[in-house]
Amino acid sequence: MTRERLYLYDTTLRDGQQTQGVQFSTPEKLRIAEALDTLGVDHIEGGWPGANPTDSAFFEEVAPGRAVMTAFGMTKRAGRSAANDDVLAAVLNARTPSVCLVGKTHDFHVERALGITLEENVENIRASVAHLVAEGREALFDAEHFFDGWKANPGYAAECLKAAYEAGARWIVLCDTNGGTLPPEIARIVSEVIAAGIPGDHLGIHTHNDTETAVAGSLAAVEAGARQIQGTLNGLGERCGNASLTTLIPTLLLKEPYASRYEIGVSRAALEGLTRVSRMLDDILNRVPMKQLPYVGASAFAHKAGLHASAILKDPSTYEHIDPGVVGNRRFIPMSNQAGQSNLRRRLEEAGLVVEKGDPALARILETVKAREEQGYAYDTAQASFELLAREELGQMPEFFEIKRYRVSVERRKNKYNEMVSLSEAVVVLKIDGEKRMSVSDSMDAAGSDRGPVNALSKALAKDLGPYQHMIDDMRLVDFKVRITQGGTEAVTRVIIDSADGQGRRWSTVGVSANIVDASFEALLEAVRWKLIRDTEAARAEAAE
Amino acid sequence: MTRERLYLYDTTLRDGQQTQGVQFSTPEKLRIAEALDTLGVDHIEGGWPGANPTDSAFFEEVAPGRAVMTAFGMTKRAGRSAANDDVLAAVLNARTPSVCLVGKTHDFHVERALGITLEENVENIRASVAHLVAEGREALFDAEHFFDGWKANPGYAAECLKAAYEAGARWIVLCDTNGGTLPPEIARIVSEVIAAGIPGDHLGIHTHNDTETAVAGSLAAVEAGARQIQGTLNGLGERCGNASLTTLIPTLLLKEPYASRYEIGVSRAALEGLTRVSRMLDDILNRVPMKQLPYVGASAFAHKAGLHASAILKDPSTYEHIDPGVVGNRRFIPMSNQAGQSNLRRRLEEAGLVVEKGDPALARILETVKAREEQGYAYDTAQASFELLAREELGQMPEFFEIKRYRVSVERRKNKYNEMVSLSEAVVVLKIDGEKRMSVSDSMDAAGSDRGPVNALSKALAKDLGPYQHMIDDMRLVDFKVRITQGGTEAVTRVIIDSADGQGRRWSTVGVSANIVDASFEALLEAVRWKLIRDTEAARAEAAE
Repeated sequence: MTRERLYLYDTTLRDGQQTQGVQFSTPEKLRIAEALDTLGVDHIEGGWPGANPTDSAFFEEVAPGRAVMTAFGMTKRAGRSAANDDVLAAVLNARTPSVCLVGKTHDFHVERALGITLEENVENIRASVAHLVAEGREALFDAEHFFDGWKANPGYAAECLKAAYEAGARWIVLCDTNGGTLPPEIARIVSEVIAAGIPGDHLGIHTHNDTETAVAGSLAAVEAGARQIQGTLNGLGERCGNASLTTLIPTLLLKEPYASRYEIGVSRAALEGLTRVSRMLDDILNRVPMKQLPYVGASAFAHKAGLHASAILKDPSTYEHIDPGVVGNRRFIPMSNQAGQSNLRRRLEEAGLVVEKGDPALARILETVKAREEQGYAYDTAQASFELLAREELGQMPEFFEIKRYRVSVERRKNKYNEMVSLSEAVVVLKIDGEKRMSVSDSMDAAGSDRGPVNALSKALAKDLGPYQHMIDDMRLVDFKVRITQGGTEAVTRVIIDSADGQGRRWSTVGVSANIVDASFEALLEAVRWKLIRDTEAARAEAAE
Repeated sequence: MTRERLYLYDTTLRDGQQTQGVQFSTPEKLRIAEALDTLGVDHIEGGWPGANPTDSAFFEEVAPGRAVMTAFGMTKRAGRSAANDDVLAAVLNARTPSVCLVGKTHDFHVERALGITLEENVENIRASVAHLVAEGREALFDAEHFFDGWKANPGYAAECLKAAYEAGARWIVLCDTNGGTLPPEIARIVSEVIAAGIPGDHLGIHTHNDTETAVAGSLAAVEAGARQIQGTLNGLGERCGNASLTTLIPTLLLKEPYASRYEIGVSRAALEGLTRVSRMLDDILNRVPMKQLPYVGASAFAHKAGLHASAILKDPSTYEHIDPGVVGNRRFIPMSNQAGQSNLRRRLEEAGLVVEKGDPALARILETVKAREEQGYAYDTAQASFELLAREELGQMPEFFEIKRYRVSVERRKNKYNEMVSLSEAVVVLKIDGEKRMSVSDSMDAAGSDRGPVNALSKALAKDLGPYQHMIDDMRLVDFKVRITQGGTEAVTRVIIDSADGQGRRWSTVGVSANIVDASFEALLEAVRWKLIRDTEAARAEAAE
């Protein structure tokens, strides 16, 4: 049975940018476009040229890829020709092979929002699409508020679609702009539109997640005959977001009846990059990735319940609907007071610590984890700190150095130019092989601006680690997350530090205290200790050869 | 037309607790149960008595409400009678009027995970349900992995359901445990189950969000005839979460065809408390509420696009699928470089600042907001800081006091009992009406433990505000959020502080700096200034009367 082609249209760079708090820079847009092209979407909607400078710059700089680069705009305004509409001209000036124009199809909006006659609006659609075609572009028409429009006045909504179709639009996109239409209604209306004479292989679907059914609504439209799906990475988008391509892509490739019925531009190989692409977007947005995200979230294959976790160890298919590796994600059995010893031993093995079944240390480790999680520590994420905790209990924790005391101060005052400036200074006293060492540092960066107390402390700590100095030279802090959480009865600060080194290792450590400086320093120390363990082990291994 | 009754079964306290990183305390469970009861769900699944102490304590302490309190457990094990199964006994000992037992219906799991014969499993289901009925309890049977089981061996899956039904189970709940089943398949199988002899008004649906279709899957099951929906608040739950009742409740009450077909226990009045209930749960979990959450999220009715925002001002129905007030949420037009002056004037009016149309200050304010957001400030959330910024530009910012300088230090060392302890000390020098005042404070709380540098600074600042002292006496910090973000080219710390006062006001302010102490102090100062403005205005108003 030959499979029908489905087309994916990504609007992360346009509708996705409507998300509250999201504003991409041009370089960020270029990075995302490249990732989308590698993933294998068919269209990339880059933005609205002329509407804002970032978007115009993007279209100037973006390199052509496999995906069809598309500029977004709106149909010409009444009272002028398409050729003389400056807004439309700016869109065409981006010189993209494809152009998508949004227009009204809901009579209420034509009269209420545009304040023009129904006939003028139909003519605006027809003339704008015809103009795109005459200019040699592929034309798409985004039918705004289509489903509400069809319910209010199907005759007029159909007239608008026909105007676009007969003028040569390759795709007529049915948009549920307000996100209020549920899947069964979407399916019904798409069938009615096809019956009204617009072929399904010219129909696209654009849904929003205001009722949490954007993905189901897109699938319902496909089953009714639509052949293009518009969506965004991670479901980014105005209000509650757009349909998530991050969810739709694996569903279309892996789930029946879609997998055997349809073909999309994303290969199985590219699918393995999906989790990475999703995390990259959060990285650009500087957001903590949503753990609960389907397929790609850190919790998507996390098995907390003791019963589930032990069944998973017997056979993953018992509690997983797909193999996490297929989407580049991984299984995770978190440490928690619901997890059993079998999971614990598995976690320890991952850290290279082999412990015999029934070893009393296992119970002690679980107890300590539980007690510290009640204080606010989080070992689900801070795996390196978990390893250090386990080593303590197993008596396998080397003492490289001991912190005797430290002091850090932040002073803010006027400088000689009468500007308020800050300076942080730290003193760290530590003992290595019985020898005391004191290091001092301020917090100035190369540019001469203050980076704060934690920076001063980490510089002082790193200044003189004697025999271990060379091991931490290639170590750097890649992320620093702070949140206020409950430590028993009172609020405490939890700091999680992600570190990396020259050998490509990446590890997370945690510190908790009512004092944010102490919490940060604790996480910092754990990061250094973990690094020293790895490097001394490596050195020992070499020596043994 | 009389509407059919649909029943809502909440499992936030049981399946919701399977969420990675979630662990409720007994008092927290009691608070959530009370909120669920007020909301109007039919069943509250409180946990698994005997499986962990928190759950057992919950059932001892919870007060009876309108909702049927339900204990969760599993069917008896093979080789012993239901009466002699200690696990089942512990569940019954919670003395709840209703009990829900999970059992296998998928032959693969019976043989693979339980390692018993198919017949033994059917007998375990029958005997367990019969035992509950004999004990005078309402019996529910959670058919684990039901949809996968039906696809693999419909005959056996049906036999399991019939055993529970004939033994007197009030509800047979079809669970899509691995979350891999899509809505059309759920609808088909539910119809087949009804055709096989289990009446729809005895069928429940329990979905997970692994394909982002848990809500649509629940609705599909209802349309196929099921009459109970199981879900959680905010879609909490293992892996990607359970079906979200926070989304399903408004959809069932407000959306067609559901609104006119079905009746649920939640009243329109209770629906107005939905947003509050959702935020309360995040508050308990100490999580930043998800802005994109349907109906209740802070972004659910946020209109960023300039075109949308201005249309909304003409007529809200142009870009909203429901009235936000109906679910206790509110419309929001964020400040951002995509927002126009009309929205800005609206925002200023909300803050009591009336500005004439076309006032050049409007453009200056937009410019400043844009520039500061590029530095890392976030005015979407920090409304009080936005107001202060606007007042600066409008020349309406009173100078209550001026900070001349401050200094804070954190010292960690061994005390005389040889324990590591910390102490933070702050000095703040400020000028009020030309008079310099210096205040000093440490960071010790009543319990004598160190609360850190920010606490020391805020205590020193609040120590002597001269004529304004009485105004800040009733002010307190209710939340403190820290995140690392991009300020132009380098990483900076953004601190958002939520404050409240004795008159029930609640406001948010923001501070940004590479130095976390400076960022915190900036947000703190903004909070104090906003409070002084409100109180001096109030005092002036009184004097005028």
